[in-house]
Amino acid sequence: MQAALSKPKLISLAAGFTDNDSLPLAEIRESLAEILSSSRRGRAALQYGSTQGDPVLREWTSKHLVGIDGVSGSAAAYSPERMIITNGSQQMLYMITEALCDPGDVVLVEDPTYFVYLGILQSHGIQARGVSLGRDGIDLQKLEAVLESLKSSGELRRVKALYLVTYFQNPTGTTTTFEKKAAALKLLKRYERAAGHPIYLLEDAAYRELCFKGENVKTALAIPGGTDRVIYAGTYSKPYSTGARVGFGILPEPVFTAVLRIKGNHDFGTSNLLQQLLAHALKSGRYDQHLRELRQRYARKAAVMSAALRKHFPAGVEWAEPAGGLYFWAKANGIKTGRRSKLFANALANDVVYVPGELCYANDPTRPVPNSEMRISFGNASEADIRRGIERLGKAMRKNSPGGK
Amino acid sequence: MQAALSKPKLISLAAGFTDNDSLPLAEIRESLAEILSSSRRGRAALQYGSTQGDPVLREWTSKHLVGIDGVSGSAAAYSPERMIITNGSQQMLYMITEALCDPGDVVLVEDPTYFVYLGILQSHGIQARGVSLGRDGIDLQKLEAVLESLKSSGELRRVKALYLVTYFQNPTGTTTTFEKKAAALKLLKRYERAAGHPIYLLEDAAYRELCFKGENVKTALAIPGGTDRVIYAGTYSKPYSTGARVGFGILPEPVFTAVLRIKGNHDFGTSNLLQQLLAHALKSGRYDQHLRELRQRYARKAAVMSAALRKHFPAGVEWAEPAGGLYFWAKANGIKTGRRSKLFANALANDVVYVPGELCYANDPTRPVPNSEMRISFGNASEADIRRGIERLGKAMRKNSPGGK
Repeated sequence: MQAALSKPKLISLAAGFTDNDSLPLAEIRESLAEILSSSRRGRAALQYGSTQGDPVLREWTSKHLVGIDGVSGSAAAYSPERMIITNGSQQMLYMITEALCDPGDVVLVEDPTYFVYLGILQSHGIQARGVSLGRDGIDLQKLEAVLESLKSSGELRRVKALYLVTYFQNPTGTTTTFEKKAAALKLLKRYERAAGHPIYLLEDAAYRELCFKGENVKTALAIPGGTDRVIYAGTYSKPYSTGARVGFGILPEPVFTAVLRIKGNHDFGTSNLLQQLLAHALKSGRYDQHLRELRQRYARKAAVMSAALRKHFPAGVEWAEPAGGLYFWAKANGIKTGRRSKLFANALANDVVYVPGELCYANDPTRPVPNSEMRISFGNASEADIRRGIERLGKAMRKNSPGGK
Repeated sequence: MQAALSKPKLISLAAGFTDNDSLPLAEIRESLAEILSSSRRGRAALQYGSTQGDPVLREWTSKHLVGIDGVSGSAAAYSPERMIITNGSQQMLYMITEALCDPGDVVLVEDPTYFVYLGILQSHGIQARGVSLGRDGIDLQKLEAVLESLKSSGELRRVKALYLVTYFQNPTGTTTTFEKKAAALKLLKRYERAAGHPIYLLEDAAYRELCFKGENVKTALAIPGGTDRVIYAGTYSKPYSTGARVGFGILPEPVFTAVLRIKGNHDFGTSNLLQQLLAHALKSGRYDQHLRELRQRYARKAAVMSAALRKHFPAGVEWAEPAGGLYFWAKANGIKTGRRSKLFANALANDVVYVPGELCYANDPTRPVPNSEMRISFGNASEADIRRGIERLGKAMRKNSPGGK
């Protein structure tokens, strides 16, 4: 497979990379030149900053979130004082998990979920329990059933958090409604007494800025009374530049203090130069301008992929149209899609690769791992490659009879 | 104390920040402009790179190390294939410790040592055992005695590494001779059979590039037959820019694979833009040119501090002249220097702050923590502030009678 992946003609519909042509090259060049032209600002950017992160970047990030959530009155939940800047939101997820969990603990996750987060859990010996996912977020009855079953088995005291990728979810593209976030948090709170400790709602909003249609959904930070139980992880990587990666988290105590200590041990704080770059992009309006262009670009690429799927995929394969993010999630009912499947091998032989759905499922003993789904990304491939890639994938699927391994 | 530290007139001789005026502002502005002027290179720099790190930066880093170590023949130990790029060497130290150690394990450290590393150990429930430090590195007889005592107590199987800050050590300024590194590694190997696993020599060379006198000492990578037991952590933060922080490690298997997996979970790889910046600085000769100027600057600042110490410190206080790095280590025999000491309070009242020596000692039950030393940095303060700061500190010391708390 390693050999196949290095084939020059391979079209990758697997990677979660952003669109190369969309990268704000000129904007970043200008921002950096402006920052580094001032002796005072430039030197500050090249020196250590604080472990928590640049106050100006935190202030603008907070303002930005308050603005898109349309929060009126007090915005205490969004305070820059509760925010820590990180090397992408990935580092925030890692540190939160380090802070909250011991080996043997349980984190509830969407079924399916972001596979790198499953890797973080696994590497720390933490169990993941899946909660099935509907069109508008997790199934609340299933969440209650899982909590109830963990209560019965005496494992509820090991449950530390519910992890939700709430916007244009990786891998399914699903967005969780605000009502569902609030109802999930209410459920978690009901089980806290039996758990003997807080159970946090960890909202991963990595794809939030990449929305190109549909209505705006508020974050869990806007849930009344939720401030002390919601942890929010966001990022500027996907919407601005993955190579100049900056993410952030908003955290309640005592998680905030624990994560800040871990951040000090990890690296004393994220590169100050990159933080100044993002702060400059936000203040100068370059970030907002870039977002507008980026959304149009991804809307177009998603439409190209959608048309290609309709044209080339065999009947019986299902998918939903995403309203944002980078992914289509296709259910190839009856055709196996896993790493060892014929389809995956045929796809590679035809110079196209996708993410097998099985990788996105927790190793949860309470159900078998589904094996007939694919995550297909329109993020990095060009429009021409999207068309060609889907055509190749469609051909590979037609070779596979339903039920074939 | 927090209030004192925010006093506007305070001179900090505590921080390990680099010299503000030395930061290569124009060079970095030029490098970034060049990288971002090319559409191909610029876009690549703003996209994700690999988890291991940019191949060009690894190649140049490897060449640079081979060059200063003067290694002839095979330089397999320095191979870019064994190298991982990180967010400063701090992240490398963190990941190595995560990869090697379980809670309850033991890491041997210099006594005193780099206090942030002690924090990493503590946060993972790992014990630190101190090995006393002479003028040219750790006391080998003491190392043997510590290993022997751990063998007797049955704890040798918990010993995973010996951590040495080998160049212009933080906090003492000591440089470990090559012979001592080789002898220490030989000793560790002798105890491996009883330990039941490898015991690694973890060389932290964070200050190596900041040498301004004395002879060049080879790294532990040059020890014949040491390749599979030496882990080397280096950085471009201190010698180039702490705000555009990039570090690296060179690791043997199986540590390499374990650390690479952890790096993937932490953040998928260090900011590609910062890596391209450093690679560009190395290739263009800007890095070497900067180093030459930086060394002259620190040599001058160290001389200024040395003269001030001779002029203002009371008799009986001892220190050695560092040949590099950022620190003087003063032994105020008979005067307590700890955070709760009169001297520390007097110093703060006189608007000067240092790092109390006690912070640099492991919580090692086999000896009391020394409490009459100070780490005094000439890194960040201006020459004028170094003179004023040492004068104030000298005054504060004269107020303290020997034996006073």
